[in-house]
Amino acid sequence: MKKAHNFSAGPAILPAEVIKEAAGSVLNFNNLNLSLLEISHRSKDFIDVMEEARALVKELMGFGNEYQVLFLGGGASLQFAMVPYNLLPQNGSAAYVNTGVWASKAIKESKLIGNTNVIASSEDKNFNYIPAGYTIPADASYLHLTSNNTIYGTQMHNFPHSPVPVVCDMSSDIFSRRMDFGKFDLIYAGAQKNIGAAGATLVVVKESLLGKTGRKMLSMLDYQVHIKGESMYNTPPVFSIYVCLLTLKWLKKNGGLAWIEKVNKAKADAMYGEIDRNSLFTGTCAKNDRSFMNACFLLTKPELEETFNKMWKDAGISGIKGHRDVGGYRASLYNALPLESVNALVEVMKEFEKKHA
Amino acid sequence: MKKAHNFSAGPAILPAEVIKEAAGSVLNFNNLNLSLLEISHRSKDFIDVMEEARALVKELMGFGNEYQVLFLGGGASLQFAMVPYNLLPQNGSAAYVNTGVWASKAIKESKLIGNTNVIASSEDKNFNYIPAGYTIPADASYLHLTSNNTIYGTQMHNFPHSPVPVVCDMSSDIFSRRMDFGKFDLIYAGAQKNIGAAGATLVVVKESLLGKTGRKMLSMLDYQVHIKGESMYNTPPVFSIYVCLLTLKWLKKNGGLAWIEKVNKAKADAMYGEIDRNSLFTGTCAKNDRSFMNACFLLTKPELEETFNKMWKDAGISGIKGHRDVGGYRASLYNALPLESVNALVEVMKEFEKKHA
Repeated sequence: MKKAHNFSAGPAILPAEVIKEAAGSVLNFNNLNLSLLEISHRSKDFIDVMEEARALVKELMGFGNEYQVLFLGGGASLQFAMVPYNLLPQNGSAAYVNTGVWASKAIKESKLIGNTNVIASSEDKNFNYIPAGYTIPADASYLHLTSNNTIYGTQMHNFPHSPVPVVCDMSSDIFSRRMDFGKFDLIYAGAQKNIGAAGATLVVVKESLLGKTGRKMLSMLDYQVHIKGESMYNTPPVFSIYVCLLTLKWLKKNGGLAWIEKVNKAKADAMYGEIDRNSLFTGTCAKNDRSFMNACFLLTKPELEETFNKMWKDAGISGIKGHRDVGGYRASLYNALPLESVNALVEVMKEFEKKHA
Repeated sequence: MKKAHNFSAGPAILPAEVIKEAAGSVLNFNNLNLSLLEISHRSKDFIDVMEEARALVKELMGFGNEYQVLFLGGGASLQFAMVPYNLLPQNGSAAYVNTGVWASKAIKESKLIGNTNVIASSEDKNFNYIPAGYTIPADASYLHLTSNNTIYGTQMHNFPHSPVPVVCDMSSDIFSRRMDFGKFDLIYAGAQKNIGAAGATLVVVKESLLGKTGRKMLSMLDYQVHIKGESMYNTPPVFSIYVCLLTLKWLKKNGGLAWIEKVNKAKADAMYGEIDRNSLFTGTCAKNDRSFMNACFLLTKPELEETFNKMWKDAGISGIKGHRDVGGYRASLYNALPLESVNALVEVMKEFEKKHA
């Protein structure tokens, strides 16, 4: 049977070969006659998975030994708390740029821990643009950014020059493009959009940043504990990390970030080209801040909603209903989504215009 | 090829049909033409998984609406912190029974949060027994127990009558036997031994216990936040929870806790029977406190170690090397391990005695 065109916002589409290999390893991992789910995380076979995944992240980011790579449980939501818990001292203050729901959640947790200033926000226009021209306080303990905003379809296409360490939530666009990762001091990302399966969270942190708050820390919230444990202080989310490894290998094998950037640009060009061309659709964001990962758009004739919905469903398309905060549609174009799926959606949009404009 | 006899201490053996169905759903879940890894956790298909798993836990425990069931990320290690964070007020004190490494870790985290008293311990004999006859302070905020101690092979076969709420880490023997679960106010368990795949942690909590510390709480560490979010405050570890559901269904279908208790007793009887009978082996624990889940034993002639190791490896047995804190051997007999695997090990032990006694 033909596979659905999966535009889900996350958990999201993964490469077909990753899915196939992951399923095979659930049955029999490394020809051990054991499932990946049934072996010790301290076995050589799984330690190899963990170490290869950690090394590949460093390689893709061009990082040396000053950065540490962790795969933790708890999702990006736990990072909202762990970041200030590890980086914000009692007498310090954190600077946040508020670009949507996820940034707001990060801000909420930081406020529970210490002084937290929102230095820029696009809340005035329902987060449909990326703030610019703000001043970063030179005495901030860190600056917190969200590189891509799934719900609103905005993305940072460039990053501010910062006098203080930069922390970035890259959950929804990690490894989707080339980037000077050296601009960042701590990067985190839930796995379930671009790099793997729900249940694991990637954290990459410059080690010299840590251990400076004077706070007595709960072990599981302490990056230094996880670094010392080589990302296995406790039993890690084994399967999710394995899927991350397979996806990272797929990315590298196909040409890495330079390759995926081209692929993603072609998909975004096709998608936004049609949104702008087609009289029945309109984009929701400032054009310069449009996300290459999540294209949000509305019907110009909302009364045609059911008609359009039937058409894309009939074409085997799934997951393009917009988030309730924006309405309309959201086509998520994560790394593993093939250009053919975008073309299929564009065809439906064209057909829809022909019949109903 | 013949499947290995998997005595791994965790992540551990799962029922063959669970493994098979999990692998199938990685390829195509519910005939959606999508992988389980690629669908929204907010889709009806996954919400059904979550709700069925939560309901099955309640059913197996015989609980009504006063208890809430959560599947969280972060492992039991995160629960070591969440328990005191949610239950121990500034002016309160917590009572812990120290029965091993995991209990010690729980105590360490609790001490970071508030007054924590170790009211009984078996550390004096390298945790080879379960303390008894201790007094539980009537003014404690809660009593914390660890029902089974994987490393030392001890298990609580009965539980103290407690004047205060009882919290129990059941990571390594959850759903291995019938039990009056109503004795407990909060139960938690990492999934990777008896109920599923690494990455999910089961928490069952009496809701009336919560919200009483006066502490301002980080969202991800707040049980009430997760309850309000119906165990989906953030993206849950989808695959691990699905494997829990399949394992719980397998348990129910075969006869539930009454059935598995019989199976586990037969395995433990066979295992300990041979340890006690065979002149080349000796058990490590007080007999009355022996675990039905993890049987620890030593060679009476340590010089034969390599010989014995070769014999069990040749018989397709894996995972019985003892933990470094105890040495020797540990046969983990979790729910999904068939009696035939125990018999295979017993046969090797008999053969070993015949040749080398």
